[in-house]
Amino acid sequence: MIKEAVIVGAGLGSRLRGTLENRPKGFLELNNEYIVEMSVKKLISHGIERIIIGTGHCSEWYERLAERYPAIDLIHNERYAETGSMGTLEVCATKVTGDILLLESDLLYDSIALHTLINDPHPNVVLGSGFTQSGDEVYIAVDDNQEVSIISKHLDEVGEPFAELVGISKLSYNTLMAMCAFAAKHHADVPKMEYEAAIVGAQKAGEHLFVRKVEYLTWREIDDANHLALALEHTLPRVLENELLRGVRREVLLNPGPATTTDSVKQAQVVADICPREEEFGNMMRWICDELTAFVGSTDEYETVLFAGSGTLADEVMISSCVPKDGKLLIINNGSYGARMATIAGVYNLNFGVFESSTYQPLDLNALTKVLDKGFYTHLAAVYHETTTGLMNPIPEIGRLCHDRGIVTIIDTVSAFAAIDIDMKRDHIDFMASTSNKNIQGMAGACFVFCNRKELEKLKNEPMRTYYMNL
Amino acid sequence: MIKEAVIVGAGLGSRLRGTLENRPKGFLELNNEYIVEMSVKKLISHGIERIIIGTGHCSEWYERLAERYPAIDLIHNERYAETGSMGTLEVCATKVTGDILLLESDLLYDSIALHTLINDPHPNVVLGSGFTQSGDEVYIAVDDNQEVSIISKHLDEVGEPFAELVGISKLSYNTLMAMCAFAAKHHADVPKMEYEAAIVGAQKAGEHLFVRKVEYLTWREIDDANHLALALEHTLPRVLENELLRGVRREVLLNPGPATTTDSVKQAQVVADICPREEEFGNMMRWICDELTAFVGSTDEYETVLFAGSGTLADEVMISSCVPKDGKLLIINNGSYGARMATIAGVYNLNFGVFESSTYQPLDLNALTKVLDKGFYTHLAAVYHETTTGLMNPIPEIGRLCHDRGIVTIIDTVSAFAAIDIDMKRDHIDFMASTSNKNIQGMAGACFVFCNRKELEKLKNEPMRTYYMNL
Repeated sequence: MIKEAVIVGAGLGSRLRGTLENRPKGFLELNNEYIVEMSVKKLISHGIERIIIGTGHCSEWYERLAERYPAIDLIHNERYAETGSMGTLEVCATKVTGDILLLESDLLYDSIALHTLINDPHPNVVLGSGFTQSGDEVYIAVDDNQEVSIISKHLDEVGEPFAELVGISKLSYNTLMAMCAFAAKHHADVPKMEYEAAIVGAQKAGEHLFVRKVEYLTWREIDDANHLALALEHTLPRVLENELLRGVRREVLLNPGPATTTDSVKQAQVVADICPREEEFGNMMRWICDELTAFVGSTDEYETVLFAGSGTLADEVMISSCVPKDGKLLIINNGSYGARMATIAGVYNLNFGVFESSTYQPLDLNALTKVLDKGFYTHLAAVYHETTTGLMNPIPEIGRLCHDRGIVTIIDTVSAFAAIDIDMKRDHIDFMASTSNKNIQGMAGACFVFCNRKELEKLKNEPMRTYYMNL
Repeated sequence: MIKEAVIVGAGLGSRLRGTLENRPKGFLELNNEYIVEMSVKKLISHGIERIIIGTGHCSEWYERLAERYPAIDLIHNERYAETGSMGTLEVCATKVTGDILLLESDLLYDSIALHTLINDPHPNVVLGSGFTQSGDEVYIAVDDNQEVSIISKHLDEVGEPFAELVGISKLSYNTLMAMCAFAAKHHADVPKMEYEAAIVGAQKAGEHLFVRKVEYLTWREIDDANHLALALEHTLPRVLENELLRGVRREVLLNPGPATTTDSVKQAQVVADICPREEEFGNMMRWICDELTAFVGSTDEYETVLFAGSGTLADEVMISSCVPKDGKLLIINNGSYGARMATIAGVYNLNFGVFESSTYQPLDLNALTKVLDKGFYTHLAAVYHETTTGLMNPIPEIGRLCHDRGIVTIIDTVSAFAAIDIDMKRDHIDFMASTSNKNIQGMAGACFVFCNRKELEKLKNEPMRTYYMNL
């Protein structure tokens, strides 16, 4: 999975000076939206989590943009006046940690281009299109393997052009490094190198950069007033329509859950198949668990366990796994899910009691304290937010009461996680459960239990009550 | 969900006589594929399960096509020579059971058109495009609600055209019936009515037919040699590229499971959100269960129960739910999943024994018979096909042995269901489990247990061993 993109944004739109008034090229407005901002949104909706933008001229424009997009990570090319786009890419490369998508900043394009590159099996792909006759074409010639051989604006240099360069590429980390090495060798003789030259240089140095040609791609680079007029009349309406057509009707669901999902969440399911026995799959599971944990605690002290199943399954995982044979569980019941936890505890014949409370009045903490003070209970289970009624239990206060008495806490946070500020350590939550389809607004089908590692460790010699649901 | 389509295919391609040589219009070949066959494939990949085609001239061409596509359901318009396309649609309508997509047979189109109609919130949608200048345009004018007011080839009749008619529409069952009623009223005065006239007639009679305009849709109706040349040069390459670009790289996974998935399976996840408390959702669950059951038995005697979870969960559902307190379970262990069932039985402290057998040699049925003849066991669990080794157990023979001795059978058919011919009644299988991601080649995440209703009924007063996994 590609998670990073680089946009080389240092250039000024000098040929658009009348329109751009001292802005970087990417800040041309089409339909009241910056062209680079459109690109940022497309990248985010295709799973890119970090967009490294190399700035130069008028970098304050990018700084203001970055305030609105946490995914943007700016780096300034101090020598932007003396370098070309490759100089900016070299600066950006210091921040890159994996494979990337590389984009020019002044491109208007149908986002199917991103899908095409991400999907392509080649690790390095330079995107080409049919010939646009735009008057500012950059041509690509290829070798017998359809890999880059020449990139040039001059047809006489190219000979037989295979495609026109769009300005979007997929690069493996190693190939990016090879491009930087090529550029470094030529800092003296080619101080204003463009990144296209480094692509050809890397290919010549033994890297393999495949050219993917999309004959009818809707796109346009906007360098002058004529391009701008054509973009507004022809390119933008086509791009907007294409992207609208691929979208899905958004329903308003008047139910407490599951949450509705965006197009990008739905489309994230449409990816190449992955083998669950591969390291790649294990890494993805690890990454998901760590990202989930990071919402609520440190991965040193807390661990997330994934299950295929519903929120009810996650609750049952906790009730059936977290109370040892000699444990005594108090369940707070002030709503459907509290009642369900009591039902589940009954199924397993746990030694448990129920603290009954109104389904619409605040919990009586004094009464609860008195029960806990009897010293009978070792574990407490409660629902943070009752999905059905909206009732919130004062979990941090309950957590403090339990912590002071050495009682382990088991919290259903199905509709609280990722909406209410939770810090498992601060709030003294030892185990908590949630699902993919509530506040994180993913598709239904996965659920997870967050565990205090120390408490989890204590359970390792307990007999299993189930096989699948055992933590 | 729209499950039916109607193609009015009775017409001869008279203006293409040189090319078509006495074939129906839909049998024009582009790149060695019939144009109507391309359409059939697109419909199937968009979830259409039944394609009703009304035939007329040279219907044998459609009969040969139908042999290759079980989804095609032909009906012959006996009066094709005296009626227009509406006459054929009236004949087709007798087979329609719900909402439909209606298509002309001689259309080449980007399948995004189908996605657009299916996604559109209006129940009736007539698809329009920008103006193609094809020389054979049919224009649509609309009223203030963007509903059909006029459809005509003559610009002077239309006044201000809103869009060009593509020839693909979405019609609710009721609106289709209103169109048929309109046509029936005019059988005498308009014997050769085209379906477009009935669309306008239905709108005038109080139905609401929204016009959805896709300005840049790639499509072409092919009526003459000029259209054909343009289709080959311009339309077909664009359609093929667009559809290729939306696809997903197909990986070959060298693992025993889960199965890889096709683009249409992946894309079936990209639909409008649906509320799990709605009747629509319940109906879909019911439909899935009945369709699954139909593979292996009658829905009167057998029932399928769905779970969110893996194949292991489905096995655990059976082991933990199907053996009553006083039951005695024999588990055949000749592979990983047999061993796992024994582990699960151990977790629940069932009264069980294990029949050990080689993981690569056939099971010794005589030895098994001797064990069963002791009369100790009431239930038997086995794996039909061991995913890890490919070993098959002789389930019909084992089923017969059990049936003769009144022993209930519990079979893991995770990688057998939908690949091996199973008839639960004939094979004496009482409970069996499988998943969405093996032979039916769906996405992972759902699993199901097939139950003999009579045996399921007997379990209803048994205490639950789990909450989520209880049958």
